[in-house]
Amino acid sequence: MNGLKMHEIEIGQSASYTKTVTETDVYLFAGISGDTNPVHLNEVYAKDSIFKTRVVHGLLTASLISTVLGTKLPGPGSIYAKQDLKFLAPVYFNDTITATCTAKEKIEARDMVIFECKVTNQDDTLVLVGDATIIVGK
Amino acid sequence: MNGLKMHEIEIGQSASYTKTVTETDVYLFAGISGDTNPVHLNEVYAKDSIFKTRVVHGLLTASLISTVLGTKLPGPGSIYAKQDLKFLAPVYFNDTITATCTAKEKIEARDMVIFECKVTNQDDTLVLVGDATIIVGK
Amino acid sequence: MNGLKMHEIEIGQSASYTKTVTETDVYLFAGISGDTNPVHLNEVYAKDSIFKTRVVHGLLTASLISTVLGTKLPGPGSIYAKQDLKFLAPVYFNDTITATCTAKEKIEARDMVIFECKVTNQDDTLVLVGDATIIVGK
Amino acid sequence: MNGLKMHEIEIGQSASYTKTVTETDVYLFAGISGDTNPVHLNEVYAKDSIFKTRVVHGLLTASLISTVLGTKLPGPGSIYAKQDLKFLAPVYFNDTITATCTAKEKIEARDMVIFECKVTNQDDTLVLVGDATIIVGK
Repeated sequence: MNGLKMHEIEIGQSASYTKTVTETDVYLFAGISGDTNPVHLNEVYAKDSIFKTRVVHGLLTASLISTVLGTKLPGPGSIYAKQDLKFLAPVYFNDTITATCTAKEKIEARDMVIFECKVTNQDDTLVLVGDATIIVGK
Repeated sequence: MNGLKMHEIEIGQSASYTKTVTETDVYLFAGISGDTNPVHLNEVYAKDSIFKTRVVHGLLTASLISTVLGTKLPGPGSIYAKQDLKFLAPVYFNDTITATCTAKEKIEARDMVIFECKVTNQDDTLVLVGDATIIVGK
Repeated sequence: MNGLKMHEIEIGQSASYTKTVTETDVYLFAGISGDTNPVHLNEVYAKDSIFKTRVVHGLLTASLISTVLGTKLPGPGSIYAKQDLKFLAPVYFNDTITATCTAKEKIEARDMVIFECKVTNQDDTLVLVGDATIIVGK
Repeated sequence: MNGLKMHEIEIGQSASYTKTVTETDVYLFAGISGDTNPVHLNEVYAKDSIFKTRVVHGLLTASLISTVLGTKLPGPGSIYAKQDLKFLAPVYFNDTITATCTAKEKIEARDMVIFECKVTNQDDTLVLVGDATIIVGK
């Protein structure tokens, strides 16, 4: 049940998690976060918005990055220190999105690894990028 | 239903959203994200972890920032461009956390406002900080 | 609020429960169980699978059998001892499935009743069969 | 994203999934399945039952077996053919339960593997046992 240790992680190593994000996910996320912005929950409003239809919360999209880091690379036992997020394109209901994290730098003195993270949709459009800094067990 | 425009936002202006985060929120978030890291869902494992009990997903805590930005300041109609997150302390089940966003810089030429964001718990412990960059309507 | 007693159950007696199983059911079930197999949650992956689209978790389909046994026949007060499950055909999102349980044997000495259970879809295709053994109150 | 093939599975190989099962899980499962048996949802009723308090649905406990088979061993791409379940002890709210599946027989001619499955709680009490038959990719 324990994730990778510092010495088990190599630069360039990567892992992914893919999911079709649905209306159910968005509506539950709205309930959890309290983010009831009509662009996520009101189709009449969203039709007149720049997106033309309801879109997925940016932080729901980002949550798949946490899935990769917390369950695969490095996995359980690591601690989330930092996450930068740059939202590049909207995610729509029923898009199938893939979060991928790739180890890009090891800071041995501080037991930290920096991962380059990205989320793409089914058309390989980049919807989100950003680095994560993870404290990894020795 | 529309949020604030560029000229309606003043530097120093702030807004908050507070919620008691529960086991239900964490378990639903695990389902939405797929992040089933045992530190969130396995009390026996978590007892032996650095946190001594199950903790809330970092991006669930961060989602309350999106609630402030998407529903209050600037509110509907704004677009999330960037979010930096620095996780400073764990959030436990049943903690009452407050996300606060304060306008700190306006980039008129690009219709952007940078907000200083933070999340604190019921003891005023800072659990999360990070800047958000929002594209605001003219 | 109490179910049927041993002497109130006759061989051949049956009860059913029908429900349209939705994407919401499947996504919540994935969260509860932790079963994030992409055949349930990833439409792009599922399209290339033998099923051609996302399918319902087998144990979610089976759960409707428990609904019949726990709420109708014999109902509250009975105890689940055994359940055999044989999965015969996939259940798709929005299928309307019916679980039916029929008493087929009474083991008086042990206060047990064996039920023949099946689940069919809206086209009467048999998707699941299996016997349940229930301890019934005297 | 693909699970193990026939030749990659060895007799004796095993995998596990552990989770603290909560009230949230039970209440959502009741909604999904329709199994509103008061022994799961009615504390006043359950106090007078043989269990003395509300208990977890047997098929919710069983669902963790599906998590092991569908995400770890053999993982995605395998097909659920059969599952036998023998319920041995109640699971209570907030129990931390572990499902373990161990390959016990390979039926090469039919691309099938039989797994011995069990679920134990935090005190190592066996709460559920039963064999699973899985069709595995070549």
